[in-house]
Amino acid sequence: MIKRMAMVGGTHGNEFTGIYLLDKLQNQLQLTAVTIDYVLANPKAYQAVKRYLDRDLNRCFKLSDLADHKLSGYENLRAKEINQQLGPKGNSKTDFIVDLHTSTAPMGINLVLTKIDEFHLRLVDFVQQRLEGVIITWEDIADHHFLMSIAEKHLLVEVGATPQGVLRQDVFDKTEAAVGFIIEFIELYNSHELPKPSASVDIYKYFDVAYLPQNEQGEIIGMVHQNIQDRDFGLLKTGEPIFKLFSGEDVVYQGEDCTISFINEAAYYDEKKAFSMSRKVSIEL
Amino acid sequence: MIKRMAMVGGTHGNEFTGIYLLDKLQNQLQLTAVTIDYVLANPKAYQAVKRYLDRDLNRCFKLSDLADHKLSGYENLRAKEINQQLGPKGNSKTDFIVDLHTSTAPMGINLVLTKIDEFHLRLVDFVQQRLEGVIITWEDIADHHFLMSIAEKHLLVEVGATPQGVLRQDVFDKTEAAVGFIIEFIELYNSHELPKPSASVDIYKYFDVAYLPQNEQGEIIGMVHQNIQDRDFGLLKTGEPIFKLFSGEDVVYQGEDCTISFINEAAYYDEKKAFSMSRKVSIEL
Repeated sequence: MIKRMAMVGGTHGNEFTGIYLLDKLQNQLQLTAVTIDYVLANPKAYQAVKRYLDRDLNRCFKLSDLADHKLSGYENLRAKEINQQLGPKGNSKTDFIVDLHTSTAPMGINLVLTKIDEFHLRLVDFVQQRLEGVIITWEDIADHHFLMSIAEKHLLVEVGATPQGVLRQDVFDKTEAAVGFIIEFIELYNSHELPKPSASVDIYKYFDVAYLPQNEQGEIIGMVHQNIQDRDFGLLKTGEPIFKLFSGEDVVYQGEDCTISFINEAAYYDEKKAFSMSRKVSIEL
Repeated sequence: MIKRMAMVGGTHGNEFTGIYLLDKLQNQLQLTAVTIDYVLANPKAYQAVKRYLDRDLNRCFKLSDLADHKLSGYENLRAKEINQQLGPKGNSKTDFIVDLHTSTAPMGINLVLTKIDEFHLRLVDFVQQRLEGVIITWEDIADHHFLMSIAEKHLLVEVGATPQGVLRQDVFDKTEAAVGFIIEFIELYNSHELPKPSASVDIYKYFDVAYLPQNEQGEIIGMVHQNIQDRDFGLLKTGEPIFKLFSGEDVVYQGEDCTISFINEAAYYDEKKAFSMSRKVSIEL
């Protein structure tokens, strides 16, 4: 039974869609059996129109970090505050957290899982069956660093493409539609009226990350090749060009065929990441 | 005769294309008759991956601001320094300035003029005849606030769409191609070998700006309607929806038909601008 849930936006301050959608839902959404906390997670980063001030807030929620009193940057403090408000992680007063994000990459509606138990599989299957362009991904990390990991049950919704610091109606509408079906699922779950699930769900499981080409000083010496730009959740084959060096040369991919996403994502330039690599797994329900 | 020119990038710190293109040109471009200064205009904003720290640098170059010692924010100081290095405005040691920008709106290659004398008209005509997707715009302001206004002759190149803080190869390549033709024009201009121009050039002249819908507290109460999203340099007709309010209602355009651009541009959210309005004028050469 999900009695208390949290709707979180602005975990990254320059992802406006979730922030404005929170306001809209708070004014318009009426639920009888579920209490919803609306949380603007990183108000200072939102004010500064930045992803974060000191550290990515969505990397601050490992149990060890939440307990570490030496971590005193703004986001680490805010993580502890949010953990008090919604958690504490491991024994949380919140049953379910939805965290709303956007990407600068054209990935459609990406539902991000940290675990694949029956609840989460049925949840993403329910949304995917009712909404076009839904992709499911899975980051298999024990004691996850995501904000939503405060609650046992959780889902991250990441919609793109939109530049940072912008409200695009298409991205806003898709996010709102996904949230609508998530709420519908929760109500059906609570009343034990969930419809029959699909036989299986296709999930992209991350296994690695590729970095931008750099010189020995760590300076970027090339960019993402237009051959792969905007091909999020498409297949990258061995031998395809992935980087265009400023010298004019191409760099080709030498690994095994895989699915790529977050291609040339603006938010990942701080770590010089070029794209994420995943493989599709089909999981029975 | 153009003996000394400046190539400027990073006037806005989160527009990476010009910044990396400067590096590439500096390493690869060889001109005999023209000296080129390469200027990373706002290094602190680039470091912070922000458009600016205290004030938009590309609004700091009015003669009155350059002479105002009370204006002591970072960009105002940097403007005076750049004016010393390349100018001084009104009696400049630099004959020609190219300033490289990007937009989050899909505007192709936008060449921005502040004046329409023979040199500038022939320059933009030359580039437009040789490159696909070139749009010419004109901001008719006496004593302009743009950095490039330091030199009598100047051109701003604005290419989009790209998110801020990202290098997209398509945008990089278009910018490089435009710069290549600008350099070719300068060399032909210097050797009096310019080809015959077109009979006329079509130029979009700005006349107004539309703002996002706001309540009395100045808070945004809606977003750019998907009806106009990505329609940069297309025609907006009276009666078309331009905003989608969070309440669900549409706001329709009530002015005269006009051309719109910078639609939902990320950089303009600080002033809550929704789009710019212009009219096409045809100017004989």
